[in-house]
Amino acid sequence: MAGNSRDPGRSVTARALGVLTAFDIGHTRLTLTEIARRSEIPLATAHRLVGELVQWGALNREGDGRYAVGLRLWEIGLLAPVHAELRRTALPYMQELYETTGENVHLAVRDGLEAVYVEKLTGRRSAPIISRSGGRLPLHSTGVGKVLLAHAPAPLVHEYCEQALLRHTPYTIVEPGRLGRELQAIRQRGFAQTSEEMTLGNCSVAVPIRDADGGVVASLGLVVHSVRAELPKLARPLLPAAEAIQQRMREHEHADSSD
Amino acid sequence: MAGNSRDPGRSVTARALGVLTAFDIGHTRLTLTEIARRSEIPLATAHRLVGELVQWGALNREGDGRYAVGLRLWEIGLLAPVHAELRRTALPYMQELYETTGENVHLAVRDGLEAVYVEKLTGRRSAPIISRSGGRLPLHSTGVGKVLLAHAPAPLVHEYCEQALLRHTPYTIVEPGRLGRELQAIRQRGFAQTSEEMTLGNCSVAVPIRDADGGVVASLGLVVHSVRAELPKLARPLLPAAEAIQQRMREHEHADSSD
Repeated sequence: MAGNSRDPGRSVTARALGVLTAFDIGHTRLTLTEIARRSEIPLATAHRLVGELVQWGALNREGDGRYAVGLRLWEIGLLAPVHAELRRTALPYMQELYETTGENVHLAVRDGLEAVYVEKLTGRRSAPIISRSGGRLPLHSTGVGKVLLAHAPAPLVHEYCEQALLRHTPYTIVEPGRLGRELQAIRQRGFAQTSEEMTLGNCSVAVPIRDADGGVVASLGLVVHSVRAELPKLARPLLPAAEAIQQRMREHEHADSSD
Repeated sequence: MAGNSRDPGRSVTARALGVLTAFDIGHTRLTLTEIARRSEIPLATAHRLVGELVQWGALNREGDGRYAVGLRLWEIGLLAPVHAELRRTALPYMQELYETTGENVHLAVRDGLEAVYVEKLTGRRSAPIISRSGGRLPLHSTGVGKVLLAHAPAPLVHEYCEQALLRHTPYTIVEPGRLGRELQAIRQRGFAQTSEEMTLGNCSVAVPIRDADGGVVASLGLVVHSVRAELPKLARPLLPAAEAIQQRMREHEHADSSD
Protein backbone atom coordinates (compact mmCIF):
# COMPACT_ATOMS: atom_id res chain seq x y z
CA MET A 1 0.00 0.00 0.00
CA ALA A 2 1.32 3.46 -0.89
CA GLY A 3 2.67 5.35 2.09
CA ASN A 4 3.59 2.20 3.97
CA SER A 5 6.52 0.72 2.10
CA ARG A 6 10.13 1.60 1.51
CA ASP A 7 9.44 1.98 -2.19
CA PRO A 8 12.07 4.19 -3.83
CA GLY A 9 9.83 4.57 -6.86
CA ARG A 10 6.94 6.17 -5.12
CA SER A 11 6.43 9.88 -5.65
CA VAL A 12 7.55 12.62 -3.31
CA THR A 13 3.88 13.42 -2.73
CA ALA A 14 3.17 9.85 -1.66
CA ARG A 15 6.19 9.92 0.66
CA ALA A 16 5.12 13.23 2.22
CA LEU A 17 1.60 11.92 2.74
CA GLY A 18 3.11 8.67 4.00
CA VAL A 19 4.52 10.61 6.96
CA LEU A 20 0.94 11.38 7.98
CA THR A 21 0.05 7.67 8.11
CA ALA A 22 2.36 7.36 11.12
CA PHE A 23 -0.41 9.01 13.14
CA ASP A 24 -3.51 7.19 14.35
CA ILE A 25 -5.88 7.50 17.29
CA GLY A 26 -3.49 5.57 19.51
CA HIS A 27 -0.55 7.70 18.35
CA THR A 28 -1.54 11.36 18.11
CA ARG A 29 1.84 12.72 19.26
CA LEU A 30 5.06 11.24 17.90
CA THR A 31 8.79 11.95 17.97
CA LEU A 32 10.69 12.22 14.69
CA THR A 33 12.19 8.77 15.29
CA GLU A 34 8.74 7.27 15.85
CA ILE A 35 7.43 8.94 12.68
CA ALA A 36 10.32 7.53 10.61
CA ARG A 37 9.83 4.04 12.03
CA ARG A 38 6.06 3.95 11.78
CA SER A 39 5.94 5.36 8.24
CA GLU A 40 8.95 3.27 7.12
CA ILE A 41 10.85 6.29 5.80
CA PRO A 42 14.60 6.77 6.41
CA LEU A 43 15.23 9.18 9.29
CA ALA A 44 16.96 11.81 7.13
CA THR A 45 14.07 11.82 4.64
CA ALA A 46 11.52 11.91 7.46
CA HIS A 47 13.38 14.88 8.96
CA ARG A 48 13.14 16.84 5.71
CA LEU A 49 9.51 15.90 5.00
CA VAL A 50 8.38 16.63 8.57
CA GLY A 51 10.05 20.04 8.29
CA GLU A 52 8.07 20.79 5.13
CA LEU A 53 4.85 19.53 6.66
CA VAL A 54 5.40 21.68 9.78
CA GLN A 55 6.14 24.74 7.64
CA TRP A 56 2.88 24.25 5.78
CA GLY A 57 0.85 23.59 8.95
CA ALA A 58 0.03 19.94 8.23
CA LEU A 59 2.00 18.97 11.34
CA ASN A 60 2.66 20.97 14.48
CA ARG A 61 5.67 20.74 16.77
CA GLU A 62 4.30 20.57 20.31
CA GLY A 63 5.89 22.02 23.45
CA ASP A 64 7.56 18.70 24.32
CA GLY A 65 9.23 18.43 20.89
CA ARG A 66 6.87 15.76 19.61
CA TYR A 67 4.79 16.26 16.47
CA ALA A 68 1.01 16.20 16.08
CA VAL A 69 -1.41 16.78 13.21
CA GLY A 70 -1.69 20.54 12.70
CA LEU A 71 -4.63 22.91 12.81
CA ARG A 72 -4.40 23.63 9.08
CA LEU A 73 -4.76 19.98 8.07
CA TRP A 74 -7.64 19.61 10.52
CA GLU A 75 -9.36 22.63 8.95
CA ILE A 76 -8.92 21.28 5.40
CA GLY A 77 -10.13 17.83 6.47
CA LEU A 78 -13.36 19.39 7.73
CA LEU A 79 -14.10 20.45 4.13
CA ALA A 80 -14.75 16.80 3.18
CA PRO A 81 -18.41 16.43 2.12
CA VAL A 82 -19.11 13.93 4.94
CA HIS A 83 -18.38 16.76 7.35
CA ALA A 84 -19.11 19.99 5.46
CA GLU A 85 -22.38 18.70 3.99
CA LEU A 86 -23.70 15.56 5.71
CA ARG A 87 -22.57 16.22 9.28
CA ARG A 88 -23.42 19.91 9.20
CA THR A 89 -26.92 19.21 7.93
CA ALA A 90 -27.55 16.36 10.35
CA LEU A 91 -26.12 17.89 13.54
CA PRO A 92 -29.11 19.99 14.65
CA TYR A 93 -31.38 16.95 14.21
CA MET A 94 -28.90 14.77 16.07
CA GLN A 95 -28.91 17.38 18.85
CA GLU A 96 -32.67 17.13 19.10
CA LEU A 97 -32.54 13.33 19.15
CA TYR A 98 -30.01 13.51 21.94
CA GLU A 99 -32.21 15.99 23.76
CA THR A 100 -35.30 13.79 23.36
CA THR A 101 -33.69 10.47 24.22
CA GLY A 102 -30.54 11.25 26.25
CA GLU A 103 -28.91 8.34 24.38
CA ASN A 104 -25.87 8.06 22.08
CA VAL A 105 -26.71 9.39 18.62
CA HIS A 106 -24.67 8.16 15.66
CA LEU A 107 -24.18 9.20 12.05
CA ALA A 108 -22.21 6.84 9.83
CA VAL A 109 -21.31 6.24 6.19
CA ARG A 110 -19.93 3.16 4.49
CA ASP A 111 -16.33 3.13 3.21
CA GLY A 112 -15.69 -0.17 1.47
CA LEU A 113 -16.40 -2.94 3.97
CA GLU A 114 -16.51 -0.73 7.07
CA ALA A 115 -18.80 1.76 8.73
CA VAL A 116 -17.10 5.12 9.33
CA TYR A 117 -18.54 7.17 12.18
CA VAL A 118 -19.01 10.73 10.96
CA GLU A 119 -20.41 11.98 14.25
CA LYS A 120 -21.29 10.68 17.66
CA LEU A 121 -23.19 12.65 20.26
CA THR A 122 -23.03 11.37 23.77
CA GLY A 123 -23.73 12.60 27.25
CA ARG A 124 -22.05 11.55 30.44
CA ARG A 125 -25.11 9.48 31.32
CA SER A 126 -25.43 7.69 27.95
CA ALA A 127 -24.39 4.04 27.55
CA PRO A 128 -20.58 3.79 27.20
CA ILE A 129 -19.69 3.01 23.59
CA ILE A 130 -16.55 2.47 21.57
CA SER A 131 -17.32 4.55 18.49
CA ARG A 132 -15.78 7.99 17.85
CA SER A 133 -16.00 10.42 14.95
CA GLY A 134 -13.52 9.28 12.32
CA GLY A 135 -13.53 5.78 13.81
CA ARG A 136 -14.44 2.58 12.00
CA LEU A 137 -16.67 -0.28 13.10
CA PRO A 138 -17.98 -3.45 11.43
CA LEU A 139 -21.05 -3.48 9.22
CA HIS A 140 -22.61 -6.69 10.56
CA SER A 141 -22.65 -5.99 14.30
CA THR A 142 -23.71 -2.35 14.65
CA GLY A 143 -27.09 -0.76 13.96
CA VAL A 144 -25.83 1.86 11.51
CA GLY A 145 -23.56 -0.76 9.91
CA LYS A 146 -26.46 -3.14 9.29
CA VAL A 147 -28.45 -0.37 7.59
CA LEU A 148 -25.49 0.49 5.35
CA LEU A 149 -24.89 -3.18 4.52
CA ALA A 150 -28.59 -3.84 3.87
CA HIS A 151 -28.54 -1.14 1.19
CA ALA A 152 -25.09 -1.87 -0.29
CA PRO A 153 -24.74 -3.29 -3.83
CA ALA A 154 -25.28 -7.07 -3.91
CA PRO A 155 -21.67 -7.94 -4.94
CA LEU A 156 -20.37 -6.00 -1.94
CA VAL A 157 -22.74 -7.79 0.44
CA HIS A 158 -21.54 -11.06 -1.07
CA GLU A 159 -17.89 -10.06 -0.60
CA TYR A 160 -18.62 -8.98 2.97
CA CYS A 161 -20.26 -12.30 3.86
CA GLU A 162 -17.42 -14.25 2.19
CA GLN A 163 -14.97 -13.07 4.84
CA ALA A 164 -15.03 -14.63 8.31
CA LEU A 165 -17.41 -12.41 10.28
CA LEU A 166 -15.95 -11.41 13.62
CA ARG A 167 -17.94 -12.57 16.65
CA HIS A 168 -17.79 -9.61 19.07
CA THR A 169 -20.23 -11.16 21.58
CA PRO A 170 -22.13 -14.47 21.76
CA TYR A 171 -25.03 -12.60 20.07
CA THR A 172 -23.18 -11.34 16.99
CA ILE A 173 -24.70 -12.71 13.79
CA VAL A 174 -21.84 -14.47 11.99
CA GLU A 175 -23.73 -16.95 9.78
CA PRO A 176 -24.01 -15.50 6.24
CA GLY A 177 -27.45 -17.03 5.70
CA ARG A 178 -28.86 -15.57 8.88
CA LEU A 179 -27.23 -12.20 8.16
CA GLY A 180 -28.79 -12.21 4.68
CA ARG A 181 -32.27 -12.76 6.14
CA GLU A 182 -31.60 -10.01 8.69
CA LEU A 183 -30.63 -7.56 5.90
CA GLN A 184 -33.81 -8.46 4.01
CA ALA A 185 -35.86 -7.76 7.16
CA ILE A 186 -34.11 -4.41 7.59
CA ARG A 187 -35.03 -3.36 4.05
CA GLN A 188 -38.66 -4.36 4.63
CA ARG A 189 -39.02 -2.88 8.11
CA GLY A 190 -37.19 0.38 7.33
CA PHE A 191 -34.85 0.19 10.31
CA ALA A 192 -32.14 -2.04 11.76
CA GLN A 193 -31.71 -3.18 15.32
CA THR A 194 -28.96 -4.95 17.25
CA SER A 195 -29.16 -6.58 20.64
CA GLU A 196 -25.78 -6.92 22.40
CA GLU A 197 -24.18 -7.86 19.07
CA MET A 198 -21.26 -5.42 19.34
CA THR A 199 -21.01 -4.77 23.09
CA LEU A 200 -22.67 -6.73 25.89
CA GLY A 201 -25.29 -4.59 27.58
CA ASN A 202 -25.89 -2.30 24.59
CA CYS A 203 -28.62 -2.32 21.95
CA SER A 204 -29.11 -0.12 18.93
CA VAL A 205 -31.58 1.00 16.28
CA ALA A 206 -30.72 2.76 13.02
CA VAL A 207 -32.44 4.10 9.92
CA PRO A 208 -31.22 5.00 6.41
CA ILE A 209 -30.61 8.50 5.05
CA ARG A 210 -31.21 8.60 1.28
CA ASP A 211 -30.11 10.94 -1.50
CA ALA A 212 -32.47 12.40 -4.09
CA ASP A 213 -32.24 9.19 -6.16
CA GLY A 214 -33.26 7.03 -3.20
CA GLY A 215 -29.77 5.61 -2.67
CA VAL A 216 -28.73 5.15 0.95
CA VAL A 217 -25.82 7.52 1.64
CA ALA A 218 -25.68 7.38 5.44
CA SER A 219 -27.29 5.93 8.52
CA LEU A 220 -28.58 7.55 11.68
CA GLY A 221 -28.79 5.50 14.86
CA LEU A 222 -29.18 5.34 18.63
CA VAL A 223 -27.20 3.14 21.00
CA VAL A 224 -28.81 2.48 24.39
CA HIS A 225 -28.36 0.33 27.48
CA SER A 226 -30.17 -2.96 26.95
CA VAL A 227 -32.15 -2.51 30.14
CA ARG A 228 -33.63 0.72 28.77
CA ALA A 229 -34.31 -0.70 25.35
CA GLU A 230 -37.66 -0.77 23.63
CA LEU A 231 -36.11 -0.86 20.20
CA PRO A 232 -39.07 -0.41 17.84
CA LYS A 233 -40.21 2.51 20.00
CA LEU A 234 -36.74 4.08 19.70
CA ALA A 235 -36.98 3.95 15.91
CA ARG A 236 -39.92 6.35 16.06
CA PRO A 237 -38.01 9.63 16.60
CA LEU A 238 -35.28 8.46 14.19
CA LEU A 239 -37.50 8.18 11.14
CA PRO A 240 -38.75 11.81 11.00
CA ALA A 241 -35.21 13.05 11.80
CA ALA A 242 -33.77 11.07 8.87
CA GLU A 243 -36.57 12.37 6.64
CA ALA A 244 -35.80 15.99 7.65
CA ILE A 245 -32.06 15.53 7.05
CA GLN A 246 -32.74 14.05 3.59
CA GLN A 247 -35.01 16.97 2.77
CA ARG A 248 -32.44 19.56 3.83
CA MET A 249 -29.62 17.79 1.96
CA ARG A 250 -31.69 17.95 -1.24
CA GLU A 251 -32.46 21.64 -0.72
CA HIS A 252 -28.73 22.34 -0.37
CA GLU A 253 -28.02 20.39 -3.55
CA HIS A 254 -30.49 22.48 -5.50
CA ALA A 255 -29.38 25.76 -3.94
CA ASP A 256 -25.60 25.47 -4.31
CA SER A 257 -23.61 22.34 -3.89
CA SER A 258 -20.61 24.25 -2.57
CA ASP A 259 -22.66 25.78 0.31
CA MET B 1 2.81 32.35 1.28
CA ALA B 2 3.76 28.78 0.42
CA GLY B 3 1.09 27.02 -1.58
CA ASN B 4 -0.25 30.20 -3.08
CA SER B 5 2.45 31.39 -5.44
CA ARG B 6 3.87 30.21 -8.72
CA ASP B 7 7.25 29.69 -7.03
CA PRO B 8 9.35 27.25 -9.06
CA GLY B 9 11.69 26.84 -6.08
CA ARG B 10 9.13 25.49 -3.68
CA SER B 11 9.26 21.81 -2.86
CA VAL B 12 7.08 19.13 -4.40
CA THR B 13 5.51 18.60 -0.97
CA ALA B 14 4.56 22.26 -0.77
CA ARG B 15 3.11 22.09 -4.29
CA ALA B 16 1.08 18.98 -3.48
CA LEU B 17 -0.24 20.54 -0.28
CA GLY B 18 -0.81 23.74 -2.26
CA VAL B 19 -3.45 21.88 -4.27
CA LEU B 20 -5.41 21.43 -1.06
CA THR B 21 -5.49 25.20 -0.43
CA ALA B 22 -7.77 25.51 -3.46
CA PHE B 23 -10.54 24.19 -1.22
CA ASP B 24 -12.37 26.31 1.35
CA ILE B 25 -15.83 26.32 2.88
CA GLY B 26 -17.23 28.21 -0.12
CA HIS B 27 -15.51 25.81 -2.53
CA THR B 28 -15.82 22.23 -1.30
CA ARG B 29 -16.14 20.69 -4.80
CA LEU B 30 -13.89 21.85 -7.62
CA THR B 31 -13.07 20.88 -11.19
CA LEU B 32 -9.44 20.28 -12.14
CA THR B 33 -9.36 23.64 -13.93
CA GLU B 34 -10.68 25.41 -10.85
CA ILE B 35 -8.10 23.67 -8.65
CA ALA B 36 -5.26 24.75 -10.97
CA ARG B 37 -6.50 28.33 -11.09
CA ARG B 38 -7.21 28.66 -7.37
CA SER B 39 -3.93 27.07 -6.24
CA GLU B 40 -1.93 28.87 -8.98
CA ILE B 41 -0.40 25.67 -10.28
CA PRO B 42 -0.05 24.95 -14.04
CA LEU B 43 -2.85 22.67 -15.27
CA ALA B 44 -0.51 19.80 -16.22
CA THR B 45 1.15 19.86 -12.79
CA ALA B 46 -2.23 20.10 -11.07
CA HIS B 47 -3.42 17.11 -13.10
CA ARG B 48 -0.50 14.98 -11.90
CA LEU B 49 -0.68 16.14 -8.27
CA VAL B 50 -4.46 15.70 -8.08
CA GLY B 51 -4.00 12.16 -9.42
CA GLU B 52 -1.52 11.38 -6.66
CA LEU B 53 -3.74 12.95 -4.01
CA VAL B 54 -6.75 10.95 -5.24
CA GLN B 55 -4.74 7.73 -5.23
CA TRP B 56 -3.76 8.35 -1.63
CA GLY B 57 -7.28 9.35 -0.53
CA ALA B 58 -6.53 12.99 0.24
CA LEU B 59 -8.94 13.98 -2.52
CA ASN B 60 -11.95 12.13 -3.87
CA ARG B 61 -13.37 12.26 -7.38
CA GLU B 62 -17.12 12.75 -6.98
CA GLY B 63 -19.83 11.40 -9.27
CA ASP B 64 -20.01 14.62 -11.28
CA GLY B 65 -16.26 14.57 -12.02
CA ARG B 66 -15.43 17.32 -9.53
CA TYR B 67 -12.97 16.80 -6.69
CA ALA B 68 -13.57 17.09 -2.96
CA VAL B 69 -11.46 16.52 0.16
CA GLY B 70 -11.33 12.77 0.78
CA LEU B 71 -12.36 10.62 3.71
CA ARG B 72 -8.76 9.68 4.50
CA LEU B 73 -7.59 13.28 4.89
CA TRP B 74 -10.67 14.00 7.01
CA GLU B 75 -9.82 11.03 9.25
CA ILE B 76 -6.19 12.15 9.67
CA GLY B 77 -7.27 15.73 10.35
CA LEU B 78 -9.42 14.48 13.24
CA LEU B 79 -6.21 13.28 14.95
CA ALA B 80 -5.19 16.92 15.61
CA PRO B 81 -5.09 17.50 19.39
CA VAL B 82 -7.77 20.20 19.16
CA HIS B 83 -10.13 17.46 18.01
CA ALA B 84 -8.74 14.20 19.42
CA GLU B 85 -8.05 15.65 22.87
CA LEU B 86 -9.79 18.97 23.50
CA ARG B 87 -12.99 18.42 21.53
CA ARG B 88 -13.41 14.80 22.62
CA THR B 89 -13.01 15.71 26.28
CA ALA B 90 -15.28 18.73 26.07
CA LEU B 91 -18.12 17.28 23.96
CA PRO B 92 -20.11 15.49 26.70
CA TYR B 93 -20.02 18.65 28.82
CA MET B 94 -21.03 20.74 25.82
CA GLN B 95 -23.92 18.30 25.29
CA GLU B 96 -25.07 18.85 28.83
CA LEU B 97 -24.81 22.62 28.45
CA TYR B 98 -26.89 22.41 25.31
CA GLU B 99 -29.38 20.20 27.12
CA THR B 100 -29.62 22.63 30.07
CA THR B 101 -29.79 25.84 28.08
CA GLY B 102 -31.02 24.95 24.56
CA GLU B 103 -28.58 27.59 23.29
CA ASN B 104 -25.58 27.52 20.93
CA VAL B 105 -22.56 26.07 22.71
CA HIS B 106 -19.08 26.98 21.42
CA LEU B 107 -15.58 25.71 21.95
CA ALA B 108 -12.75 27.78 20.46
CA VAL B 109 -8.95 28.12 20.50
CA ARG B 110 -6.75 31.00 19.41
CA ASP B 111 -4.61 30.67 16.28
CA GLY B 112 -2.53 33.82 15.89
CA LEU B 113 -4.90 36.77 15.76
CA GLU B 114 -8.07 34.75 15.21
CA ALA B 115 -10.45 32.52 17.14
CA VAL B 116 -10.85 29.07 15.58
CA TYR B 117 -14.11 27.29 16.35
CA VAL B 118 -13.31 23.72 17.34
CA GLU B 119 -16.93 22.76 17.93
CA LYS B 120 -20.34 24.33 17.81
CA LEU B 121 -23.48 22.65 19.10
CA THR B 122 -26.72 24.11 17.96
CA GLY B 123 -30.36 23.13 17.82
CA ARG B 124 -32.93 24.26 15.32
CA ARG B 125 -34.40 26.60 17.93
CA SER B 126 -31.11 28.21 18.98
CA ALA B 127 -30.18 31.72 17.85
CA PRO B 128 -28.88 31.67 14.25
CA ILE B 129 -25.11 32.20 14.27
CA ILE B 130 -22.32 32.38 11.73
CA SER B 131 -19.71 30.19 13.41
CA ARG B 132 -18.94 26.62 12.30
CA SER B 133 -16.37 24.05 13.41
CA GLY B 134 -13.13 24.85 11.61
CA GLY B 135 -14.32 28.40 11.01
CA ARG B 136 -12.57 31.55 12.17
CA LEU B 137 -14.00 34.62 13.84
CA PRO B 138 -12.48 37.80 15.34
CA LEU B 139 -11.11 37.94 18.86
CA HIS B 140 -12.57 41.35 19.82
CA SER B 141 -16.23 40.85 18.96
CA THR B 142 -17.10 37.31 20.11
CA GLY B 143 -17.40 35.95 23.65
CA VAL B 144 -14.91 33.11 23.22
CA GLY B 145 -12.61 35.46 21.27
CA LYS B 146 -12.57 38.02 24.08
CA VAL B 147 -11.63 35.33 26.61
CA LEU B 148 -8.79 34.12 24.39
CA LEU B 149 -7.57 37.69 23.78
CA ALA B 150 -7.82 38.59 27.48
CA HIS B 151 -5.42 35.75 28.29
CA ALA B 152 -3.06 36.13 25.30
CA PRO B 153 0.53 37.35 25.79
CA ALA B 154 0.74 41.16 26.10
CA PRO B 155 2.70 41.68 22.82
CA LEU B 156 0.00 39.80 20.90
CA VAL B 157 -2.76 41.90 22.48
CA HIS B 158 -0.78 44.99 21.50
CA GLU B 159 -0.38 43.74 17.93
CA TYR B 160 -4.08 42.91 17.77
CA CYS B 161 -5.11 46.39 18.93
CA GLU B 162 -2.66 48.03 16.51
CA GLN B 163 -4.67 46.80 13.53
CA ALA B 164 -7.92 48.55 12.59
CA LEU B 165 -10.57 46.61 14.53
CA LEU B 166 -13.52 45.69 12.33
CA ARG B 167 -16.86 47.16 13.40
CA HIS B 168 -19.36 44.33 12.82
CA THR B 169 -22.27 46.20 14.42
CA PRO B 170 -22.69 49.65 16.01
CA TYR B 171 -21.93 47.94 19.35
CA THR B 172 -18.58 46.35 18.45
CA ILE B 173 -15.78 47.69 20.65
CA VAL B 174 -13.19 49.10 18.24
CA GLU B 175 -11.35 51.61 20.46
CA PRO B 176 -8.11 49.98 21.72
CA GLY B 177 -8.34 51.76 25.10
CA ARG B 178 -11.88 50.56 25.73
CA LEU B 179 -11.01 47.06 24.55
CA GLY B 180 -8.03 47.00 26.93
CA ARG B 181 -10.29 47.89 29.89
CA GLU B 182 -12.77 45.24 28.77
CA LEU B 183 -10.02 42.58 28.70
CA GLN B 184 -8.94 43.63 32.19
CA ALA B 185 -12.54 43.26 33.42
CA ILE B 186 -12.76 39.79 31.83
CA ARG B 187 -9.64 38.64 33.69
CA GLN B 188 -11.05 39.94 36.97
CA ARG B 189 -14.62 38.68 36.51
CA GLY B 190 -13.64 35.27 35.15
CA PHE B 191 -15.90 35.42 32.11
CA ALA B 192 -16.47 37.51 28.99
CA GLN B 193 -19.71 38.80 27.59
CA THR B 194 -20.75 40.45 24.35
CA SER B 195 -23.96 42.27 23.56
CA GLU B 196 -24.77 42.43 19.84
CA GLU B 197 -21.09 43.10 19.09
CA MET B 198 -20.79 40.44 16.35
CA THR B 199 -24.40 39.99 15.19
CA LEU B 200 -27.38 42.22 15.96
CA GLY B 201 -29.82 40.39 18.20
CA ASN B 202 -27.26 37.99 19.67
CA CYS B 203 -25.40 38.08 22.98
CA SER B 204 -22.76 35.74 24.37
CA VAL B 205 -20.90 34.68 27.49
CA ALA B 206 -17.67 32.68 27.60
CA VAL B 207 -15.20 31.31 30.14
CA PRO B 208 -11.58 30.15 29.92
CA ILE B 209 -10.36 26.53 29.89
CA ARG B 210 -6.89 26.28 31.45
CA ASP B 211 -4.11 23.71 31.23
CA ALA B 212 -2.29 22.30 34.27
CA ASP B 213 -0.02 25.36 34.39
CA GLY B 214 -2.98 27.74 34.49
CA GLY B 215 -2.49 28.92 30.90
CA VAL B 216 -5.70 29.49 28.93
CA VAL B 217 -5.80 26.95 26.09
CA ALA B 218 -9.42 27.27 24.96
CA SER B 219 -12.69 29.02 25.65
CA LEU B 220 -16.19 27.68 26.18
CA GLY B 221 -19.16 29.91 25.45
CA LEU B 222 -22.87 30.29 24.84
CA VAL B 223 -24.52 32.47 22.19
CA VAL B 224 -28.14 33.44 22.81
CA HIS B 225 -30.86 35.72 21.46
CA SER B 226 -30.55 39.12 23.15
CA VAL B 227 -34.17 39.01 24.28
CA ARG B 228 -33.46 35.82 26.26
CA ALA B 229 -30.20 37.07 27.69
CA GLU B 230 -29.38 37.34 31.36
CA LEU B 231 -25.67 37.10 30.74
CA PRO B 232 -24.17 36.77 34.22
CA LYS B 233 -26.78 34.07 34.94
CA LEU B 234 -25.71 32.21 31.77
CA ALA B 235 -22.12 32.15 32.96
CA ARG B 236 -23.17 29.99 35.92
CA PRO B 237 -23.45 26.61 34.14
CA LEU B 238 -20.35 27.43 32.05
CA LEU B 239 -17.94 27.72 34.97
CA PRO B 240 -18.39 24.19 36.42
CA ALA B 241 -18.37 22.71 32.88
CA ALA B 242 -15.03 24.42 32.11
CA GLU B 243 -13.69 23.24 35.47
CA ALA B 244 -14.71 19.63 34.72
CA ILE B 245 -13.17 19.75 31.22
CA GLN B 246 -9.89 21.09 32.66
CA GLN B 247 -9.89 18.33 35.25
CA ARG B 248 -10.45 15.60 32.65
CA MET B 249 -7.81 17.04 30.29
CA ARG B 250 -5.25 16.87 33.11
CA GLU B 251 -6.21 13.29 33.97
CA HIS B 252 -5.67 12.33 30.31
CA GLU B 253 -2.28 14.03 30.30
CA HIS B 254 -1.17 12.04 33.30
CA ALA B 255 -2.64 8.77 32.04
CA ASP B 256 -1.36 8.72 28.47
CA SER B 257 -1.01 11.73 26.26
CA SER B 258 -1.56 9.67 23.12
CA ASP B 259 -5.01 8.37 24.25
